[in-house]
Amino acid sequence: MFKSSEFLFDQIQLKRSLLCVGLDPDISKLPAVYKNLDEPYYNFCKDIVELTHTKAIAFKINIAFFEALGVDGWLQFEKLIKMIPPDCFIIADSKRADIGNTSKQYANYYFNKVNVDALTLHPYMGVDSLQPFLDFKDKYSIILALTSNPGSADFEFMEDSKGILLFERVIEKFVQLEASKNIMFVCGATHPKEFTRIRKICPDHFLLVPGVGEQGGVLKDTIKTGRNAKGGLLITISRKICYPSENLDFKTEVLAAAINFQRESYNYFIES
Amino acid sequence: MFKSSEFLFDQIQLKRSLLCVGLDPDISKLPAVYKNLDEPYYNFCKDIVELTHTKAIAFKINIAFFEALGVDGWLQFEKLIKMIPPDCFIIADSKRADIGNTSKQYANYYFNKVNVDALTLHPYMGVDSLQPFLDFKDKYSIILALTSNPGSADFEFMEDSKGILLFERVIEKFVQLEASKNIMFVCGATHPKEFTRIRKICPDHFLLVPGVGEQGGVLKDTIKTGRNAKGGLLITISRKICYPSENLDFKTEVLAAAINFQRESYNYFIES
Repeated sequence: MFKSSEFLFDQIQLKRSLLCVGLDPDISKLPAVYKNLDEPYYNFCKDIVELTHTKAIAFKINIAFFEALGVDGWLQFEKLIKMIPPDCFIIADSKRADIGNTSKQYANYYFNKVNVDALTLHPYMGVDSLQPFLDFKDKYSIILALTSNPGSADFEFMEDSKGILLFERVIEKFVQLEASKNIMFVCGATHPKEFTRIRKICPDHFLLVPGVGEQGGVLKDTIKTGRNAKGGLLITISRKICYPSENLDFKTEVLAAAINFQRESYNYFIES
Repeated sequence: MFKSSEFLFDQIQLKRSLLCVGLDPDISKLPAVYKNLDEPYYNFCKDIVELTHTKAIAFKINIAFFEALGVDGWLQFEKLIKMIPPDCFIIADSKRADIGNTSKQYANYYFNKVNVDALTLHPYMGVDSLQPFLDFKDKYSIILALTSNPGSADFEFMEDSKGILLFERVIEKFVQLEASKNIMFVCGATHPKEFTRIRKICPDHFLLVPGVGEQGGVLKDTIKTGRNAKGGLLITISRKICYPSENLDFKTEVLAAAINFQRESYNYFIES
């Protein structure tokens, strides 16, 4: 089933939320109860999904944490995908990209074999490196444009002689493609001012927005400048939901954090 | 053991070669004898390694082909790493990069758990996204600069107001770091003219060079403009060695192709 932008707009209305829960299972941070289980990452993420799936539009699975475990991690990742309810949009946050015949291998794994709805991708190597992902008409390619980390200043803000910045050029290039409707962009909440420029280039596209919370992005500002008419934002919250506190009941805290971000994100959207 | 640039210079002299064999196992292209084995990718790559390791300085393993198989692919990848002789430099061609705490997960897997010598990386997100890889003082980070695909024209040649191109800016930024001696750059053989500019910015660094053969790069030109005093090039050959011909004896052809590229690469190096 293609979870199109219409599907996502409907979910935003139904769930009254812009929340995307980021699943970053880190063995050193897991609550003690999970650490000694056979499949700690699967069980930890499963509990978070069960607690939050009625509040979240999407789940973003950080592949690196699973890949770090080797074979055992991939087993847990593939098991996790299967338990996520069908009304949630599943993003594999893997940040892949290579020359065409190699990208085709990645696309086949994530879109055919595992069957996630979307994949995050590096744009550096250009359009042809992402074409095998874009060829999937019932999937989304989520392309890094302006990332939330301080290092985004190193190259993403590079300016050409016409005053166009690299992240703007990336967005401009990809929105012109026929596959444009299967594309979203990553735009970090740590750059609220840039959302205005970004929305001029891609008014209708969904943006995946990391960087709220720990990294310093402010939810209200992000939604105000980044939203479009129907929402158009998937606000990713990882640590603030998965690792809310070490001192209180884990499940209660996860649920409370998810409800909080669900409400805040939708309220700021309605108000702005 | 740190396989430093001195180690690589020695190997170039000992083996009289600049060859890096690219291992891209593709089930649709494998000789029939491998297709029905339990571990086709492992066995195919193992035979190529055994045939070519005395001719090759390095092996570049294309992770996407293993990842495409899921759990079974990772098992074969980890098994393959263990059978590569210690006088060969092992590159995991995975093209990773993410925000710091996520990159740390990838670095830990490839450099600690699997223990390859080098990893290919996307520079788009800036220096801090690669810092966890650069923190390994006995490993190499091989950063994409100018890739061999046609899409390299889309962003890598973007020019700032001072006439500096994005790929030059990437190299300039990383060679200034303290970790500079643990860095190599990917520079495609499809851009022989640009090697002169690249060598002005990084005269001493090793370059990993894909794109010879199928993609149109000419070996002689590449070596002439890309080499430095002691070599400084790892010329990657994938399809021309792994898939030499369907009509002749597979092992004989692999060996002949490897010897051919070993001799040609060293002869052009000596002559130029």
